[in-house]
Amino acid sequence: MTYCVGLMLNRGLVFISDTRTNSGVDNISTFRKMFTWEVPGDRSITLMTAGNLATTQSVVSLLEERSKEPAARQPGILEAKSMFQVATFVGNTLKEVIATHAEAGQRADAAFNATIILGGQVAGGEPRLFLIYPEGNFIEASFDTPYFQIGETKYGRPILVRAYNPEMTFEEAIKLLLVSFDSTIKANLSVSLPLDVHVYERDSLRTGQLFRIQQNDPYFEEISNGWGIALRDAFGQLPDFSFPDDAE
Amino acid sequence: MTYCVGLMLNRGLVFISDTRTNSGVDNISTFRKMFTWEVPGDRSITLMTAGNLATTQSVVSLLEERSKEPAARQPGILEAKSMFQVATFVGNTLKEVIATHAEAGQRADAAFNATIILGGQVAGGEPRLFLIYPEGNFIEASFDTPYFQIGETKYGRPILVRAYNPEMTFEEAIKLLLVSFDSTIKANLSVSLPLDVHVYERDSLRTGQLFRIQQNDPYFEEISNGWGIALRDAFGQLPDFSFPDDAE
Repeated sequence: MTYCVGLMLNRGLVFISDTRTNSGVDNISTFRKMFTWEVPGDRSITLMTAGNLATTQSVVSLLEERSKEPAARQPGILEAKSMFQVATFVGNTLKEVIATHAEAGQRADAAFNATIILGGQVAGGEPRLFLIYPEGNFIEASFDTPYFQIGETKYGRPILVRAYNPEMTFEEAIKLLLVSFDSTIKANLSVSLPLDVHVYERDSLRTGQLFRIQQNDPYFEEISNGWGIALRDAFGQLPDFSFPDDAE
Repeated sequence: MTYCVGLMLNRGLVFISDTRTNSGVDNISTFRKMFTWEVPGDRSITLMTAGNLATTQSVVSLLEERSKEPAARQPGILEAKSMFQVATFVGNTLKEVIATHAEAGQRADAAFNATIILGGQVAGGEPRLFLIYPEGNFIEASFDTPYFQIGETKYGRPILVRAYNPEMTFEEAIKLLLVSFDSTIKANLSVSLPLDVHVYERDSLRTGQLFRIQQNDPYFEEISNGWGIALRDAFGQLPDFSFPDDAE
């Protein structure tokens, strides 16, 4: 499994992905699931993947190769004129890879599927955030739905729903996402540190802060322990229940 | 979908179930998913169901009918000598109902499946809590895993993991479960009030407090609103993140 979140703020975009892959519970590895491209002054693109690792690695390799083919039929992600065109290109590549693998024989439902979060900014446009489906189509984040999650999304969702605010600083947004990751990691063995983080600052048109939060990162441990205590305190502050008939 | 939780405390058992059933999102109804039986002074049994409604209603009807057949081959749930025997009986009934429906033609995976939480106490034994699978086998709660969830379990799990304590009062346990239900209801349309609650007091050997929390229940609304505020406060108390290179 996987857990990745892309978050749209007024001041830019924040992306965090985990790095655990598993095939069953006894075949666990660490693979990068976040990929970034930039043309300084022109664009910054971030992509995060969930699903079949062979599929997502093929997609990323094809995107890389095609961005270096000047004679390609359609512009690659480094030449496309807008984030919408980038999303279309990524979606088509994803659909193509899944179709190719599926043709090869296995017809298991969803076996080769993958889902992608894509975000960034191309000069002349706004920062945009997309969720791309295995069928190659996609939806875009808006102020009503300002974040996308892929992979194991449920455990970490309640805190996002409650605490997200588009005015947040990048530091607050990272704190929020680490709480969401901590809830997920505590509940699901197949999501794990290290975490990759990319913070894209609006209109910077280059890769922003890009770093990895390792196992035993002191800040992550502080958040993880602190959140347990803070939750119990918050719980303690809620009014007590009393039985309907006051008799127990 | 459904959300039900059974919780084992030192002082007894607490059960809460929602009442929403749906077939698609445009066919929503309210059905009871919690069923209780008692023989005062001898036993109290509570059962909560998730899954195919035709299956779970058949199971409950069969349990009812068989508890009135003195000549039955095996003792019904009102005669079985221990909670283990009750669980075996319920598991066999569940397996039988699923097999009967599946034989009738449709072979869709899991189409007729259901899962059951069973808890209670029979005179001479301890209070016990079981999770019964569609195959008829079951597992029992222990102090390591003191609660079972069925249905849409993920959204409401983080708070249980963090705030459960076997020493809790019944009032605290209900508060905890309502927070867990609130997180689930906020995230998933297919789980909804009213909620059925049963509180079984250890060694009482009769049905305990049994009541329904209705739509617009003032305490539930207080918990729901208060929890949003408390979560944001808790989040604000966590230490702030700072970027690794202290430059942003």
